[in-house]
Amino acid sequence: MTQATSIHLAARPEGEPTEDNFRTQTRDLPDPAEGEVQVRVIWLSLDPYMRGRMDAGPSYADPVEIGGVMTGQTVGEVIASNAEGFTKGDIVTGFTGWVSHANTKAAGLRKIDPSRAPIQSALGVLGMPGMTAWTGISELIGAKEGETVVISAATGAVGSVAGQIAKARGCRVIGVAGGAEKCRYAEDELGYESCIDHHAHEDGKAMAEALKAAAPDGVDGYFENVGGKTLVGVLNNMNTFGRVALCGMVAWYNGKNMDQSMPLPAAWGTILKNRLTVRGFIVADHWDRFDAFLSEVAPKIADGTIRYREDVTEGLENAPATFLSMLNGGNFGKTLIRVGPDAD
Amino acid sequence: MTQATSIHLAARPEGEPTEDNFRTQTRDLPDPAEGEVQVRVIWLSLDPYMRGRMDAGPSYADPVEIGGVMTGQTVGEVIASNAEGFTKGDIVTGFTGWVSHANTKAAGLRKIDPSRAPIQSALGVLGMPGMTAWTGISELIGAKEGETVVISAATGAVGSVAGQIAKARGCRVIGVAGGAEKCRYAEDELGYESCIDHHAHEDGKAMAEALKAAAPDGVDGYFENVGGKTLVGVLNNMNTFGRVALCGMVAWYNGKNMDQSMPLPAAWGTILKNRLTVRGFIVADHWDRFDAFLSEVAPKIADGTIRYREDVTEGLENAPATFLSMLNGGNFGKTLIRVGPDAD
Repeated sequence: MTQATSIHLAARPEGEPTEDNFRTQTRDLPDPAEGEVQVRVIWLSLDPYMRGRMDAGPSYADPVEIGGVMTGQTVGEVIASNAEGFTKGDIVTGFTGWVSHANTKAAGLRKIDPSRAPIQSALGVLGMPGMTAWTGISELIGAKEGETVVISAATGAVGSVAGQIAKARGCRVIGVAGGAEKCRYAEDELGYESCIDHHAHEDGKAMAEALKAAAPDGVDGYFENVGGKTLVGVLNNMNTFGRVALCGMVAWYNGKNMDQSMPLPAAWGTILKNRLTVRGFIVADHWDRFDAFLSEVAPKIADGTIRYREDVTEGLENAPATFLSMLNGGNFGKTLIRVGPDAD
Repeated sequence: MTQATSIHLAARPEGEPTEDNFRTQTRDLPDPAEGEVQVRVIWLSLDPYMRGRMDAGPSYADPVEIGGVMTGQTVGEVIASNAEGFTKGDIVTGFTGWVSHANTKAAGLRKIDPSRAPIQSALGVLGMPGMTAWTGISELIGAKEGETVVISAATGAVGSVAGQIAKARGCRVIGVAGGAEKCRYAEDELGYESCIDHHAHEDGKAMAEALKAAAPDGVDGYFENVGGKTLVGVLNNMNTFGRVALCGMVAWYNGKNMDQSMPLPAAWGTILKNRLTVRGFIVADHWDRFDAFLSEVAPKIADGTIRYREDVTEGLENAPATFLSMLNGGNFGKTLIRVGPDAD
């Protein structure tokens, strides 16, 4: 019988989560029920949205229940099938959660063609992060040639694709990232015009000055992943009719950096005077455009126009520590857990 | 020779403006130059945007210079013409400022047909305030049948038209206004489902509770004129995919009510989680849609579906005091100064 290891939410975090918020268990997995397949997980994706699912408060998705398996998308191999259309050896992606093995409804799985791209790209550039990036740049910001676009978390799984899509559209791209190494990567590898290291800028005022220097003609589009001092800096540099795609605010998760803000009346005044459009979005609302995403982005990945970087940690048991580190910017590229070996 | 009285910006306000910020002068007006007409002003419109023009800071329009005539739209009678297409007796509207008489370029004037509607409606329901209301409801919020729309400053020149347009589109309309009399008017005369008296609610939390009771299914569209505690209350009741048309924030003008706010991270979180769209706008960017506005709204004014109310003060010399009172909600309906008698 298959042994399945899984990581559960042990308790809701108060402020910043710790490893104590997680609990690992192992159990025997029965054979898959009718309509299910049994999957051996190869790759687990770790993403910032998971932090929100740990809280009880209302959000766009139900929280993980206490004791429940942590939510997450994986890529794995079908090792037993009790569902039409799936056979042993198929490579699939789905939301099995933080597990080594799972019985899961076939209806929630999508088959992956391993000959097209590395299978884990279904969790990154060709999956949810890539689609999120494309949605923000294309559908919300509507980035046009000659415009200046700022990308926060600019070397992350989402930001790196967002910036490269904007660049491919003829925009001037300014990145914001944490640390000199990430900034060098953004300029040298991703091709951004420049990248601002937010570690080197103490507050919103300093960020505003750095952005003013990097984008003297102002900012037309902002792909917002972080909030905090970066947001303050960008809002102070937005051009008339600028667009903000609000995708995340990781600097403010866990109740951190609340002083790195500006008063709401000042932000509201900027939105009014500059006639900005600020739109919050989650990618789940935009899946009907997945084909449009693939048709723009997949060829650019195939021909090397869009590059990507993975930050791989071995072993499911390391998922909690890796996740916590990622929330603090400790990752560099798409954060993945290698749960098991490749299929034969 | 014509004597022209005009009201000037004497000094920029620090915080709340006072009558000392204004200065009145009278001078002889020469004959109009080539391409100009001489106008005797009958009606002067007072509008909240004028407060912004008194400050030096960057905004969407140039500030009034110190010593300059206060900006404002008027309706008047041509008393002398040196421009093709205009003759003595024509009724016109244009931006002459706070004056009794002016020589003004004919190119900036629009003729009014006095037989169609009272001439001062060109300053209200059929002018900038009406067009502002329509732009917010129709172009930005895109209010649809069955949706719930909240209108702040709900009985003002803009808000009263915005609410009635939304109602005519089949929306459930909740007004927010200051005082029981205005709220009664909103419910009895404008036909809103209900109106919340913000004087009766101390802070954003109380406003949120009142709105929750008035709109138990949440708010889909918010026509934002005020900021302050009303905004806090509404943001806490917005539905997924809600739209905010940000037109003004009068509660926060003059640096007032800055404590009646919420932290930016909380507002940002609401925009993200509920996937809201917040758009600042000024009507000047939307004049190309003036015909669309007229074709929707003018018939509804003619047949009485949309009602309006004017708050008339006699005498140009009373413009400063009336303006200051309006900024504090002392008006009830479209604020107008009757500068001179009707044309014969």
